Amino acid sequence: MTLSVGVIGLGVMGAEHLRLLREETGGARVVAVCDADADRAQALAQGAQVFSDPMALIAAQGVGAVVIASPDATHAGLALACIAAGKPALCEKPLAATAAEALRIVDAEVAGGRRLLQIGYMRRFDPAYAEMLAVRQAGGIGAPVLLHNIHRNAAAPDWFTGPMAVTNSFVHEIDISRWLLGSELASAIVHAAPGGDPLMVTMETDKGEIVSTEVFMNAHYGYHVHAQMVGREGTVEMAAPAVTLANRARQHGHGFPANWVPRFADAYRIQMRAWVNAVATDQPVGASAWDGYVATAVAEQVVTALQTGAKAQLFLGSRPALYT
Amino acid sequence: MTLSVGVIGLGVMGAEHLRLLREETGGARVVAVCDADADRAQALAQGAQVFSDPMALIAAQGVGAVVIASPDATHAGLALACIAAGKPALCEKPLAATAAEALRIVDAEVAGGRRLLQIGYMRRFDPAYAEMLAVRQAGGIGAPVLLHNIHRNAAAPDWFTGPMAVTNSFVHEIDISRWLLGSELASAIVHAAPGGDPLMVTMETDKGEIVSTEVFMNAHYGYHVHAQMVGREGTVEMAAPAVTLANRARQHGHGFPANWVPRFADAYRIQMRAWVNAVATDQPVGASAWDGYVATAVAEQVVTALQTGAKAQLFLGSRPALYT
Amino acid sequence: MTLSVGVIGLGVMGAEHLRLLREETGGARVVAVCDADADRAQALAQGAQVFSDPMALIAAQGVGAVVIASPDATHAGLALACIAAGKPALCEKPLAATAAEALRIVDAEVAGGRRLLQIGYMRRFDPAYAEMLAVRQAGGIGAPVLLHNIHRNAAAPDWFTGPMAVTNSFVHEIDISRWLLGSELASAIVHAAPGGDPLMVTMETDKGEIVSTEVFMNAHYGYHVHAQMVGREGTVEMAAPAVTLANRARQHGHGFPANWVPRFADAYRIQMRAWVNAVATDQPVGASAWDGYVATAVAEQVVTALQTGAKAQLFLGSRPALYT
Amino acid sequence: MTLSVGVIGLGVMGAEHLRLLREETGGARVVAVCDADADRAQALAQGAQVFSDPMALIAAQGVGAVVIASPDATHAGLALACIAAGKPALCEKPLAATAAEALRIVDAEVAGGRRLLQIGYMRRFDPAYAEMLAVRQAGGIGAPVLLHNIHRNAAAPDWFTGPMAVTNSFVHEIDISRWLLGSELASAIVHAAPGGDPLMVTMETDKGEIVSTEVFMNAHYGYHVHAQMVGREGTVEMAAPAVTLANRARQHGHGFPANWVPRFADAYRIQMRAWVNAVATDQPVGASAWDGYVATAVAEQVVTALQTGAKAQLFLGSRPALYT
Repeated sequence: MTLSVGVIGLGVMGAEHLRLLREETGGARVVAVCDADADRAQALAQGAQVFSDPMALIAAQGVGAVVIASPDATHAGLALACIAAGKPALCEKPLAATAAEALRIVDAEVAGGRRLLQIGYMRRFDPAYAEMLAVRQAGGIGAPVLLHNIHRNAAAPDWFTGPMAVTNSFVHEIDISRWLLGSELASAIVHAAPGGDPLMVTMETDKGEIVSTEVFMNAHYGYHVHAQMVGREGTVEMAAPAVTLANRARQHGHGFPANWVPRFADAYRIQMRAWVNAVATDQPVGASAWDGYVATAVAEQVVTALQTGAKAQLFLGSRPALYT
Repeated sequence: MTLSVGVIGLGVMGAEHLRLLREETGGARVVAVCDADADRAQALAQGAQVFSDPMALIAAQGVGAVVIASPDATHAGLALACIAAGKPALCEKPLAATAAEALRIVDAEVAGGRRLLQIGYMRRFDPAYAEMLAVRQAGGIGAPVLLHNIHRNAAAPDWFTGPMAVTNSFVHEIDISRWLLGSELASAIVHAAPGGDPLMVTMETDKGEIVSTEVFMNAHYGYHVHAQMVGREGTVEMAAPAVTLANRARQHGHGFPANWVPRFADAYRIQMRAWVNAVATDQPVGASAWDGYVATAVAEQVVTALQTGAKAQLFLGSRPALYT
Repeated sequence: MTLSVGVIGLGVMGAEHLRLLREETGGARVVAVCDADADRAQALAQGAQVFSDPMALIAAQGVGAVVIASPDATHAGLALACIAAGKPALCEKPLAATAAEALRIVDAEVAGGRRLLQIGYMRRFDPAYAEMLAVRQAGGIGAPVLLHNIHRNAAAPDWFTGPMAVTNSFVHEIDISRWLLGSELASAIVHAAPGGDPLMVTMETDKGEIVSTEVFMNAHYGYHVHAQMVGREGTVEMAAPAVTLANRARQHGHGFPANWVPRFADAYRIQMRAWVNAVATDQPVGASAWDGYVATAVAEQVVTALQTGAKAQLFLGSRPALYT
Repeated sequence: MTLSVGVIGLGVMGAEHLRLLREETGGARVVAVCDADADRAQALAQGAQVFSDPMALIAAQGVGAVVIASPDATHAGLALACIAAGKPALCEKPLAATAAEALRIVDAEVAGGRRLLQIGYMRRFDPAYAEMLAVRQAGGIGAPVLLHNIHRNAAAPDWFTGPMAVTNSFVHEIDISRWLLGSELASAIVHAAPGGDPLMVTMETDKGEIVSTEVFMNAHYGYHVHAQMVGREGTVEMAAPAVTLANRARQHGHGFPANWVPRFADAYRIQMRAWVNAVATDQPVGASAWDGYVATAVAEQVVTALQTGAKAQLFLGSRPALYT
């Protein structure tokens, strides 16, 4: 059975989700699109119904599931609408602008008694992260004790403000660290280099593992994400993000991409396929609404820790039974 | 518009093609399947029409394009039937058992005046090979002068006989070398280690480039394919075929797969998407019938060269205008 | 002119220093040896004069310079004796058991007005660390902002107690971090995994750079030291500590040594040559008595920080003019 | 006991041998030097006796052993003089200009009944090659079947003429291949790219192993030597010739040297120490006069094979008992 999908938001990420649904995913059909720019929506529709009101798209009878890729500020409202309509949604991160708002969405989903939201923390579908988890779960490194994360952007976008290094970038590290370790985060301290960039965030989990993360928004040399998980028997880490190596001009090596798009192209593709399959089989995968809440809540508290400079205990509340 | 595909042969490769069409490819629908094992065909049909006669599948009105993944000996006959029916086909390699037979297929396609066949030399869609070609074409290594290929299997299958190292394995190196260099092969000499394995095949192209290929059917340590193209300004080669690295038991490194399936999973997926798109847009991609003929013809002559031990000039005939 | 050297302590390290002086260093001659085990001293003497009292060796007229490689507890007393005798010495780390004792040695050397001691922080002579420094100094990474250190032992020796991870192992990281960055350390916080191993020490320098160091005494998989320096324009890090790579048993990679001896063999050799040359030309190189004091003083305060779990400001006092 | 060494030829290599003897080698003293440029000899003498006639240096009573680093054309005559004087010599490669001349030296040494010459094929002392041999001898790759060599220079010197790619560069590959495999070379065929550079030389050993070597005199991107030995159980190859890696300007990687000097600095140092020790203990190591002859004889025959383009059987004569 083919899933009928409506896509809300056709910016860079939304258009890519649209393309993935059409070209690289079986079992799904795009039946509806919606964008603030009506001409853009029309241009990309290819026969799908064009909506100007995203709430109308969500409500439309022919729409079986929704991809939310509109601006961040709209995520929470659209997610709540999908829950109200009982329609599964793949919602781009962040789930909400604040932890409090995210918690309301969690509450709504819990009230409905069914997991409908998958948050677009796509790294969980990246082949390298997935293999790291598999190695850990297979006992390949023994009990984990440390996780080293590195998150480097070539340059922060113009519109980035201080806390966004945490709320926009580091938030990915929060989600993937919890997922890799299967642990909850318990404390955090932040060190900042002169000028506030890079940051070094050191966290502890509820099992005592240490998560050490560099977030460098202006690393200049390229976009580069790396992780190494250290266990009592060994370590597992990402290989070089390259399929070829060159010798040229007195140098051996490989290139870095300018941003995250090429680095995580596989992750986005596999995430879409996994979501379509999860909806079809009613077996949720990926980051849940709870995971989306936790990422936002930890990020908020790390922003505070950055301001105080001291080690902060993290408070998350208790996980509803729906998410265990 | 959705392409209606019939799949002939549902062995390991055929079943994977089926899965790729259904799960990882947009724009296509499997409408017909056929296998010598009727139960297997039924089990995998999922609503597609089941044929016991592949010729009937090819002739069926609802079938717009065909995937040929049946045993090697059947490829030529089915390919000719597709040409006769005017239906595009993705045909697993080899195109035919002999160069003479392959040439008859080329002649038939030329007579029809339209490229209908894409031969399943999937390496052309492997991200690493594709990037090597792109680097060469962008001038990144200057004019190519040498190509080093390494083709290692952990162990030859039981049913492998001597020449199959050439006709079954090395044939991939023939195709990819021509494609990477954009050259035609002109001579070959073969050195064989004691027992006949590994082989070292040294070829020259019509432009004077040297192609040096190790084919090791029983390399024991794992399945491993590597290539390095050397140009007057630099070199480009495959990176390690791994997404993670481990430190364990006094060792740092990554694993090798047991066979080609994991190594070329991306290539098979991208090939299928490219074929569906090529049929939809009527713009052929990948290895043509002519390329399929050349691979088989060169392999035949390399088998002879292996027997004589001397350097042999390669004879291919002239390429019909349809393929330029 | 040939330097006449006396070697005190002929354990593993002392015997290696002896060998280096004899086989791999020009410009020096071993004229005197001393060990608590008189038979061992005799066995290794090869014509050098054998002393049972290290103070007598230091005082001996024919001895122009001294290598101190006796047990840690004896370093301070012997170093003071060398200063009193006006004889240059290469003294194994640590310089002293406490910061207070180390400071007394610094004071004695300052009173003498001449740098006589080189402390055996041999990493400064390791080709990889040396190249990292050279890249930084050449502007190859821009202004440094972060230093990631990893220090893993396969297994802590039996006689290791908790603080020794700091005072015996981490002390190397203190010295090399100061040297690589050309900065002084200003604060430290320590996170400990369950059981107290590994530790994660996060320090800040007086210039605001962040130094993040993992110290894992029981990393199990092998001895492994790594460092990556991050600057505003790029990064520089150690390459794999291996001269060959193997493909074997489904794995590609290289081995790790069991301990530091093979990893730093070049560093010890180059250090010895540099010391002999420094004495001959009266141009001190390597870690000074002040550096030896700082390493011990920081280690002491990191031990305290480990116990409190909070971020500690580091106090070092002011550097005497002799060391600028 | 200290070896008294005379050094003949103080060009780039001779001066480096002088420096190694003085600074990085124990157990030796330079007592005599000789160079066509008398001023240069005087400037480097540091108290050693200066000779204008190399034969006089060889004959001098105080000279116990000789390093021959004068121009290639003089090697044979000086080597014969050392044999006549019964003095051990480390003779830079090549041993002689022709195989016939080299054979006369072998005959002279055999007549004397004692191995006096060590030929400066320094790669045998390179840590990477040495580890490859050790891995092979320890059974780490099973029986060897193939050896892939790559020899790339950034640019051929002005004075290089065609055959020098073979007689000056490839000659190193001849020696190291025989040494790594413990085999004798039996046949060779040469493929040349347009313009005669690079060459691809494919050889067979007396045990049937295949030796495949690229010699590229103008590889442009840097000086790069690589080798991979393939056995029935696995492979062993050189790691990257780098101690640090950098991320900079969208690239990850390491640099290449401009020429062989930095790449083989360790090999030259270890060779000198090994030679001094071999002379002191009268236990010859390294390439013998016979090995020097074989390298030259094979190179001569490969030059002929290059001209004919056909596979040539190699003729070496039989190895005298002195060298077994």
